[in-house]
Amino acid sequence: MRTIKHFMPTKVVFGRKTIHRIGEEIESLGLSTEKVAVICGKSAVSNGYVEIIKKHINGKVEVFDIVEPEPTVEVALRVIEEVKKFSPELLIAVGGGSPLDVAKVVSVMLTNEGELSEFIGVPEAFKKPGVPLVAVPTTSGSGSEVTPYAVLTDRRRFKKAPLISRYLYPVLAIDDPELTVTMSPIVTTNTGVDALTHAVEAFVSKRATEISKLYSGKAIELIGRFLPRSYGNPRDIEARENMMLASLLGGMAIADAGAGLVHTMAHVLGVMYRVPHGLANGVFLVPVLEFYGLSAKEEIEEIGRLMGFEGDVYRVLEKLREFLSFLGIPKSLKEVGLTESDIPDFVNLVMEKKFLMGNLPRIPTERDVREMLKKNL
Amino acid sequence: MRTIKHFMPTKVVFGRKTIHRIGEEIESLGLSTEKVAVICGKSAVSNGYVEIIKKHINGKVEVFDIVEPEPTVEVALRVIEEVKKFSPELLIAVGGGSPLDVAKVVSVMLTNEGELSEFIGVPEAFKKPGVPLVAVPTTSGSGSEVTPYAVLTDRRRFKKAPLISRYLYPVLAIDDPELTVTMSPIVTTNTGVDALTHAVEAFVSKRATEISKLYSGKAIELIGRFLPRSYGNPRDIEARENMMLASLLGGMAIADAGAGLVHTMAHVLGVMYRVPHGLANGVFLVPVLEFYGLSAKEEIEEIGRLMGFEGDVYRVLEKLREFLSFLGIPKSLKEVGLTESDIPDFVNLVMEKKFLMGNLPRIPTERDVREMLKKNL
Repeated sequence: MRTIKHFMPTKVVFGRKTIHRIGEEIESLGLSTEKVAVICGKSAVSNGYVEIIKKHINGKVEVFDIVEPEPTVEVALRVIEEVKKFSPELLIAVGGGSPLDVAKVVSVMLTNEGELSEFIGVPEAFKKPGVPLVAVPTTSGSGSEVTPYAVLTDRRRFKKAPLISRYLYPVLAIDDPELTVTMSPIVTTNTGVDALTHAVEAFVSKRATEISKLYSGKAIELIGRFLPRSYGNPRDIEARENMMLASLLGGMAIADAGAGLVHTMAHVLGVMYRVPHGLANGVFLVPVLEFYGLSAKEEIEEIGRLMGFEGDVYRVLEKLREFLSFLGIPKSLKEVGLTESDIPDFVNLVMEKKFLMGNLPRIPTERDVREMLKKNL
Repeated sequence: MRTIKHFMPTKVVFGRKTIHRIGEEIESLGLSTEKVAVICGKSAVSNGYVEIIKKHINGKVEVFDIVEPEPTVEVALRVIEEVKKFSPELLIAVGGGSPLDVAKVVSVMLTNEGELSEFIGVPEAFKKPGVPLVAVPTTSGSGSEVTPYAVLTDRRRFKKAPLISRYLYPVLAIDDPELTVTMSPIVTTNTGVDALTHAVEAFVSKRATEISKLYSGKAIELIGRFLPRSYGNPRDIEARENMMLASLLGGMAIADAGAGLVHTMAHVLGVMYRVPHGLANGVFLVPVLEFYGLSAKEEIEEIGRLMGFEGDVYRVLEKLREFLSFLGIPKSLKEVGLTESDIPDFVNLVMEKKFLMGNLPRIPTERDVREMLKKNL
């Protein structure tokens, strides 16, 4: 057995109507609510979620509803600046992965000296814990409420800007599946496929452990069963509940085992063509697993069994392609904007991202990446 | 789905030879090693484990090897007093559940005002985090390195003295299975059955969650496979490794889901007749599951499947009895000291312990407890 590392210090409170317990849960952790900054996008306000939270907080609350989807470094810097003026004792992030990730960055930037750019891409660069952060996801995808990661977009350098630190874990996650029924079928697919990608990448990762596989295995099983149901009927609360649990477990799995090549490819696609992160993962999931092929034979066949697919690697991938196609994920890279002439740039951007390679069951050469893109154009 | 609460903030580093990484792991958490108190019993010194740890710590180390098995409140008070004089910045506990539990109590008593007696039996009574504690288990049983519990013995009041606080989690657990090969077959059984009891009690608990069941289910499966092997051959490192993982997962399971009536009964037996905790659990495991019976039918049958037993509740319990008997667990309460005349006192002591009752699939009356004791005398 290889060494197992496990670390996930966030307190999780999961279940219907748990949003109404946010006040008492914060109190039970002994955290001050005298000055609270709520960080979110516009929809958390228009859906009424921010109002609910404000009702349960006694202190002074200021709302920063300025986070955009796939947030850039500039957006994060602006939020940091605004929130700094208020100097809160607690942060509450409400929304999908974007506001959660921005709030995580705000949290540590409020207490650590230095420029944001110094921390990007350098694991464990922050020296101090941040301002305590409570995460309230309203989508079932990123699992950001239980990971040590935050991902921004660096448009200038045409890259994703990842941050990795044990201080990025929120102190508390309130996972209330009733907040996810406002997702449209498209958002349901994109976020659900993000969760699936976390679980699958963690499952096949070379850093997968006996503990991370408990999470990723269960997440895959739940997504196989409940993603098509929540896609088909946004108000199916049982499906929503199970998808939120899957997303949570997907986050817990990548916290220990890391992500892989699907994420690397998806990040490049996201930056080059502004494709939403979950969709970009969905487009590369089968192509990358096909590339891993026999290098991850047992794991892929096990993933198939967990999703209810019978058969060998190739049969599992066929079934997985059908599954994603049912959910509206495009079958070709052309449909999301890739052109043949962009392939050299795309390949270069992928090959620069070496830091995930240690996780991969098969390490791609430049040529492998080019072939994968051409084959799936 | 019911509300899921999950919280386990300890960083776990599990695997062979991880003891040699203790220095770097402590450093990576940013903890000071200038003044370190090692808390343990005599065997951690004679087995050479304390020496290994000292080699990896740069600062001043003082060793407090005065913890006894099934430690009393008095022992804990003495260790607290001794360690206080040294005023360490870090504690390292090495050994079985006893030194780990005592060190957890020392940790919080060094930073919180008040008498130890004020904190006993009162959940979340500590107001401040303790001195950081690193736990190095050398048995595969208590799972104490990943729980918010510590249990002392109160001989004067003839009771166990439990402490429950989120501040009792160690900051770091180093689970090196090579440290467990020094366990004799008897200690292997007693501690292994303790781990099994944690997993089983967490599995049937009314507070069991989708997350705690991942841990308890996996632990049960591993124990079914590997406990007889490590009992049969102390040097079977693969078996030792899997038992240590099972113990870890058992601890993670009770951290979220709590223990149950087996523990309550075992605590009384332990105090009345000085029976080691794991053995006491082993003696009550089948009698209590038999009492739960059809109230926990599905769970018990699932436990059977995980352990490789076929059949319904009653068949599973028969097989479990054989399993425990193979490991040398006594079949009758007489063999561990209980007499018919002690039964009334025993029943009274059990009925006083109401705080675990919320977890139980079937709540016993006084008469139920009396019948259970008589039947298994």
